[in-house]
Amino acid sequence: MGTEFLKIKECDEAIDIIQNLFDENLKAESEEISVSEAYGRILYEDVYSRMDFPPFDKALKDGFAILSSDSFGASEESPNTLEVIDFLEAGSTTDKKVEKGKCIEISTGAAMPEGAEAVVMVEYCEKMGDKVNLFTTATPSQDVARKGSDIEEGNLILKKGDFLNPGKIGVLLSQGFETIEVYKKPSVGILSSGNEITLQGQELEYGKIYDVNGGMIKNDAVSCGADARFLGVMRDDYDEVKEKIINSLKEVDVLFCSGGTSAGLGDVLKHVLDELGEVHIHGISVQPGKPTIVGVIDEKLVIGLPGNPVSALMIFNAFVAQPLTRLAGIEKDFQLNTVKGKMTRRIHSPVGRMQYQLVKVEGQDIQPIFKDSGAIFSLSSADGYVKVPKSVELLDEGEEVEVYLFN
Amino acid sequence: MGTEFLKIKECDEAIDIIQNLFDENLKAESEEISVSEAYGRILYEDVYSRMDFPPFDKALKDGFAILSSDSFGASEESPNTLEVIDFLEAGSTTDKKVEKGKCIEISTGAAMPEGAEAVVMVEYCEKMGDKVNLFTTATPSQDVARKGSDIEEGNLILKKGDFLNPGKIGVLLSQGFETIEVYKKPSVGILSSGNEITLQGQELEYGKIYDVNGGMIKNDAVSCGADARFLGVMRDDYDEVKEKIINSLKEVDVLFCSGGTSAGLGDVLKHVLDELGEVHIHGISVQPGKPTIVGVIDEKLVIGLPGNPVSALMIFNAFVAQPLTRLAGIEKDFQLNTVKGKMTRRIHSPVGRMQYQLVKVEGQDIQPIFKDSGAIFSLSSADGYVKVPKSVELLDEGEEVEVYLFN
Repeated sequence: MGTEFLKIKECDEAIDIIQNLFDENLKAESEEISVSEAYGRILYEDVYSRMDFPPFDKALKDGFAILSSDSFGASEESPNTLEVIDFLEAGSTTDKKVEKGKCIEISTGAAMPEGAEAVVMVEYCEKMGDKVNLFTTATPSQDVARKGSDIEEGNLILKKGDFLNPGKIGVLLSQGFETIEVYKKPSVGILSSGNEITLQGQELEYGKIYDVNGGMIKNDAVSCGADARFLGVMRDDYDEVKEKIINSLKEVDVLFCSGGTSAGLGDVLKHVLDELGEVHIHGISVQPGKPTIVGVIDEKLVIGLPGNPVSALMIFNAFVAQPLTRLAGIEKDFQLNTVKGKMTRRIHSPVGRMQYQLVKVEGQDIQPIFKDSGAIFSLSSADGYVKVPKSVELLDEGEEVEVYLFN
Repeated sequence: MGTEFLKIKECDEAIDIIQNLFDENLKAESEEISVSEAYGRILYEDVYSRMDFPPFDKALKDGFAILSSDSFGASEESPNTLEVIDFLEAGSTTDKKVEKGKCIEISTGAAMPEGAEAVVMVEYCEKMGDKVNLFTTATPSQDVARKGSDIEEGNLILKKGDFLNPGKIGVLLSQGFETIEVYKKPSVGILSSGNEITLQGQELEYGKIYDVNGGMIKNDAVSCGADARFLGVMRDDYDEVKEKIINSLKEVDVLFCSGGTSAGLGDVLKHVLDELGEVHIHGISVQPGKPTIVGVIDEKLVIGLPGNPVSALMIFNAFVAQPLTRLAGIEKDFQLNTVKGKMTRRIHSPVGRMQYQLVKVEGQDIQPIFKDSGAIFSLSSADGYVKVPKSVELLDEGEEVEVYLFN
């Protein structure tokens, strides 16, 4: 009992322990995906340019590709006349060469023909048959993007950890990348437990309730960048819990178990974790959500959440969302995902235990949501929670507070 | 030519016209999806509770279900003794009835047995065989959540337009919803054009470049909540463009066309739109991105974007992202999706035309990104753009500006 007592953790301690358990046991992995499906994914590797861009000297305007020296002295009054020996559209090539006195008509985006190094815009030219009059002097390289002027081959273009937004996806596409290595979504499973738990779609017998935590925690894990799936309902029975956990850990790296009742699952889960692995946290000194349990089995995490959905959501958000999001490669600081405002009503808090008070945010107004601990409809309007430290007995009306926002 | 000139629009005008074209031609639609897959989707209907919650009088603690009057007068010194006639776990029922002098042992979450209306916590009881001593007085309804106390049947629990976060998903699950009507993702297609355009995975011939806009605009549409797909590359040829547009509009409601060159596609697209429908905008007075074209064919929108990816991205973001996001049911105001800071360098801007200057944001520092208009690598680091009004010739170093952020 002495060592067991030590496994009840203060909030800050629990946050650190859970982050460390993630760091020590779970390694971020990568997977190769199509660049065209990459929105919102996180780059797992530094990316270097594969080729110069543009990949050739490129005309920036419609006009005539010339030797710039052939335009020297040309003006509105005294044009220079050149022979037009070909026409180049974007994407096409020619084996003709621009020499002194000759030019090639060219479209924006086309590769400059051999010999030419400047473009005179069509607006300053007059074409007559196979001749063209230039009415302006072009500087060397005028209206030409030189090969590699945007980027040269072998340069760092994107960094590990970059969020792939449309612009960065465009950069990858311009270099011909078809696929790219991104952070693999952490593999997460959720088991619900309790004899009273009924799945949606089935008729609800008297005394039973629909499962909430399975689908809710699954979606919360998805919001953290995980690949999460609901793995079913189990009875609070030692053998069944043990078997389901063993089978689930073949499929996922982080397993959440959530009981329908506060008592039932907690004890069973503790014993199963003791047998198969090690319990690191058994109870967090926070209201609501004390029955939280965190263990490791073969370098995989098993996290027992409170059965009450409101508690489960807060515990997930306060203790697991950050390390899970980091494992997914996403740089989002949940400790900074806050808004400030003023309490619209006084709230009382038990001394000796941190309290998470569910609130609704309306502009500057922070409204506490008071419901008994089994209430779920508070989640229709809850935006997050306020932390009331264990030494604080009440937060007064008008007091400034920081709200930790839900996903 | 007189009426054509009228189709060149100022920026604010273009924003209004495009929003109106979306409103007049495209209706938000709904689809039924599984609640357990609903994270991030937008509710299309008001949702009312289907049943009381809890669906029965529920024990909130482990203990003994009694008639509270049977505990009156009980204390540590002088317990009341009751007969224990059954044991009720969560999810189970009994046909036994609690009467005066009798009680039923009960677990948290179980339905209260007939006759009982209060629970005495196990901590205040001592069970011996089929008797129990109560050491405290329970108030009527103590530690019982009454049927419907959280929500009664027929109440509004979620509203049309609600973003389905994990908490709201939990609320739906608690009421047994398996599926729910959400906003259907707008159906968007992207066609690229240009003879120089090569798809990733193919070898790049001299004079050709990889397609950027197809995949980039697709992902930008996805970031706005659309179901977007790349529909291929077409040549800048009247018949081919016409055929591809007709076929594409059988599949999607909003079609983006983006040319590899500034000249090629624009003219062809204008003529095809004139033949099949109506051109509403032909040119926006903004740099970069003047060649933008917006038309309607049979109540579907066709939008021609500049070929240059940087321009295409800015035009998409500034003019199309907002109406597309609204069509997806998402309440995000792109005009408010901004950060403020100070220019780190002076920038010059052409008078007479709005300029969108690509920038990188580092804390308070707003760094302009100077590249020629064909450059793509600026998108490696671009966070958004600054609007320089047409009457402004320069933004000075240190000047405070507002950055419109990319997705």
